[in-house]
Amino acid sequence: MRKIVSAVIQLGPIQKADSRSSVVERMIALLDAAKKEGATYAVFPELTFTTFFPRWYMEDQVEVDRWFERSMPNAATMPLFERAKEHGMGMYLGYAELTPEGRHFNTSILTDTSSNIIGKYRKIHLPGHAEYDDKRTHQHLEKRYFEPGDLGFPVWRAHGGLMGMALCNDRRWPETYRVMGLQGVEMISLGFNTPSVNSQRSEEGAEDRLFHHRLSCQSGAYQNACWVLASAKAGVEDGHPLIGGSLIVDPNGHIVAESKTEDDEILVHDCDLDQCNFGKTTIFDFARHRRIEHYGLITSRVGAEAP
Amino acid sequence: MRKIVSAVIQLGPIQKADSRSSVVERMIALLDAAKKEGATYAVFPELTFTTFFPRWYMEDQVEVDRWFERSMPNAATMPLFERAKEHGMGMYLGYAELTPEGRHFNTSILTDTSSNIIGKYRKIHLPGHAEYDDKRTHQHLEKRYFEPGDLGFPVWRAHGGLMGMALCNDRRWPETYRVMGLQGVEMISLGFNTPSVNSQRSEEGAEDRLFHHRLSCQSGAYQNACWVLASAKAGVEDGHPLIGGSLIVDPNGHIVAESKTEDDEILVHDCDLDQCNFGKTTIFDFARHRRIEHYGLITSRVGAEAP
Repeated sequence: MRKIVSAVIQLGPIQKADSRSSVVERMIALLDAAKKEGATYAVFPELTFTTFFPRWYMEDQVEVDRWFERSMPNAATMPLFERAKEHGMGMYLGYAELTPEGRHFNTSILTDTSSNIIGKYRKIHLPGHAEYDDKRTHQHLEKRYFEPGDLGFPVWRAHGGLMGMALCNDRRWPETYRVMGLQGVEMISLGFNTPSVNSQRSEEGAEDRLFHHRLSCQSGAYQNACWVLASAKAGVEDGHPLIGGSLIVDPNGHIVAESKTEDDEILVHDCDLDQCNFGKTTIFDFARHRRIEHYGLITSRVGAEAP
Repeated sequence: MRKIVSAVIQLGPIQKADSRSSVVERMIALLDAAKKEGATYAVFPELTFTTFFPRWYMEDQVEVDRWFERSMPNAATMPLFERAKEHGMGMYLGYAELTPEGRHFNTSILTDTSSNIIGKYRKIHLPGHAEYDDKRTHQHLEKRYFEPGDLGFPVWRAHGGLMGMALCNDRRWPETYRVMGLQGVEMISLGFNTPSVNSQRSEEGAEDRLFHHRLSCQSGAYQNACWVLASAKAGVEDGHPLIGGSLIVDPNGHIVAESKTEDDEILVHDCDLDQCNFGKTTIFDFARHRRIEHYGLITSRVGAEAP
């Protein structure tokens, strides 16, 4: 058995007016609580330190850049990294990254038990749109504020296993899991901010959104025989509701823990990486069963084209 | 609205001793019943005309070849094709194909409303093994009796929409749906024979097998915004149980009909192909969201390799 006592740490709403420091304080308290439950690894949400700002249409780049981090850790977030190091805990967390070259990414990082950043991922599947869309009930401007990730889907040897990362909408794309599955991934951490209502179909509410979220995480876990740890930012941010539904999914596709609130909440589970072995050596032994000669369109064609 | 009144026709067990003609008689009665419910398209299981013979270990090729069809339709199956033509119904059905060159495939066909065969698919993801395996509770010798399909995953314009086919284990592989999704597929028909117990993990029984089956069909439908019609051969064949769980899944991933028995049973649903449009033009508008530059491993690497 290769166990990682893992904590998925859901964050309740973060209002526009909330400071980074106030969020970091909440995160530290949650990290302490997870530590008390024995956790050695913590998964925080996407864009952990701020409200889900891509719902706001902004034209002033100075205003936009206020939501981004120019370094990580930085003065506001350093106390979290220090506390994690003190606890000997690894972390996954997401934030808006502004590089020295002025590039903007929706990013996540993986730390070791000394709070060194050992892995970085930049979100590849950006949902939404780039210009103001008056047909939507609310805006979802990730394609405006970020460029698509340029680091692929790496897998890292860390915490005694093979670790991968993804962010939010990535979880709906089977390519995300498969590229990591082909590197033997055993645990995928992902944070998300998912509005409770589809901005383009108002009758699609939280129940349906949670259904699609679970379906995507569970099928990705099952079909690649890996753990999936999904952490939500949840609840009502300045009037805009986000689903909860933080999950721990085992390599068989079963949900072993799920959040019950739309507020700060911790899920802890003793994840045995050796539970991945059965699937990876039988029904999903890729070497024996995959037939790449018939998959060509997946990498040669972007959009759908009818015959 | 572009509606296809579709019938998923589940078949209960077929014993080794049952003749092709007796099976065809059952199928015709079911086709008649589906017609009475207004169906214009019928989906039968994988290896429709016989018992699931790959559970039996055979060394004598003459004995093996008795389970195969040298032409389709043939004398035994012609009455089914005639009845379908009479009803003006299209069909999907699976059978073991022996070609004039002596090649063996696990095959399905698609017919138009005049019973002309307009599409053929040969199963690509063959599960199981090629040699007798005394560690299994039962044998699953598809890799012994068939070669992997050589026709890819085509999509056909038929019945007013874009139709695709798959067989059994194909449904667990997201590549199956995606290759068809990239051709705009609107309805995927698939037949299956799934033992109720995992031959390599006896504690994995029917409940888990049905869970994985549904998860695979539902995620494939949702993530490609298409209908999935899945038809089981079900029940106890010469002492060997097969799950039921025939399904009609809508392009939102919801199950709209599911079989309740492990016997002959018909599911009819009025499938509106225009329900595919929303997903295909929003969250799964591939042209806007897919990033093939990061998917390379999917077509360049067969088996998993740790970094």
